[in-house]
Amino acid sequence: MALSGSELIDSLQWRYATKVFDVSRKITAEDWSALEESLVLTPSSYGMQPWKFLVITDKALREKLVGVSWNQRQVADASHLVVLAAKITVTEEDLDRFITRMVEVRGGSPESLLRFRDMLARDLINGERGQYISEWAIRQCYIALGQFMASAAIMGIDTCPMEGFDPAAVNEILQLPETGYRAVLLCPAGYRSEDDRFASLPKVRFKTEDVIEHR
Amino acid sequence: MALSGSELIDSLQWRYATKVFDVSRKITAEDWSALEESLVLTPSSYGMQPWKFLVITDKALREKLVGVSWNQRQVADASHLVVLAAKITVTEEDLDRFITRMVEVRGGSPESLLRFRDMLARDLINGERGQYISEWAIRQCYIALGQFMASAAIMGIDTCPMEGFDPAAVNEILQLPETGYRAVLLCPAGYRSEDDRFASLPKVRFKTEDVIEHR
Repeated sequence: MALSGSELIDSLQWRYATKVFDVSRKITAEDWSALEESLVLTPSSYGMQPWKFLVITDKALREKLVGVSWNQRQVADASHLVVLAAKITVTEEDLDRFITRMVEVRGGSPESLLRFRDMLARDLINGERGQYISEWAIRQCYIALGQFMASAAIMGIDTCPMEGFDPAAVNEILQLPETGYRAVLLCPAGYRSEDDRFASLPKVRFKTEDVIEHR
Repeated sequence: MALSGSELIDSLQWRYATKVFDVSRKITAEDWSALEESLVLTPSSYGMQPWKFLVITDKALREKLVGVSWNQRQVADASHLVVLAAKITVTEEDLDRFITRMVEVRGGSPESLLRFRDMLARDLINGERGQYISEWAIRQCYIALGQFMASAAIMGIDTCPMEGFDPAAVNEILQLPETGYRAVLLCPAGYRSEDDRFASLPKVRFKTEDVIEHR
């Protein structure tokens, strides 16, 4: 066990949606590389990974994004900014790309995975789920957000999850739809400023007995 | 920092969607309580926590759920089973309950939060987001899933995320819709069996450079 339950909870209690980041403090390359890895390793439906993660460091680009993100300064001020983007649709080519990668990593042949591929096509392209495939992909990005924020907290790194931005404007600025993806979430990451009064506010959560039900 | 980046990644590499759980090995009460706390502490949009987490230990109930979950044995065999359920809608009463809790935790008065409450009503009930409020709530459950699986992995506990079940049947068995919630995800948790051949398969993820893009 890497962490005991109480150490884990200390980290999750420590984190909060950071409102003011310390502009001068950067995440080290080594730590950032681990956080990128935590995104890459996120579990997803069928393992399909219908996402792309944009890491934006360009200062001018980030200032531009502030303007279409309810003017939330964290977008420019945090050490790093991740844009979590979901695939807009799932195509036969996506299935092929995934199967190819499976064979690359685990060996075997695409032929041996034909039944699995058929099942994916039946569910994700031709089946009921195909009708809300964009939403299916978006949901997977939220798993990535959860894993990313928990990972950061455990490493002592602050984050601020954001749904509040103008998706059309962000997509246009990043020229995302042309690549088959669209922006779903923003997540600045870095270190809280000493001036952030939100850091010391008690966390508002419903009581455990109101949220957890035992059956 | 509670964990270094490389310790974190070791844990996230170690986890996998467990296919066979060790039926005889139970999560201790202390560890389980930390995992419940990780669910309760999950960040959500506006901090609204539009969810409920059902922890199912009743053996007969779990066998019943296997039958409507593509016969995945993990649902009954894992030490614990969590059903992540999302609020079906958001009402004025939900806003009041949330504001009441904010005042309970942070002090002040509901009146001092009136502008915040108005903003919530404008966005979640009367605004654009109100039209897809069920989906908004469902997405939040995926953050909880991400935080829960990462937390478990870091504690050396196995999980298996599941979208694959008959939602109508699960809802009926658990009599969920009557309470204003509906089942979104299942997540068995426990310890992998030595017989699970999937445990030793290399993890299939796209290459970092194909998923992470720097701008």
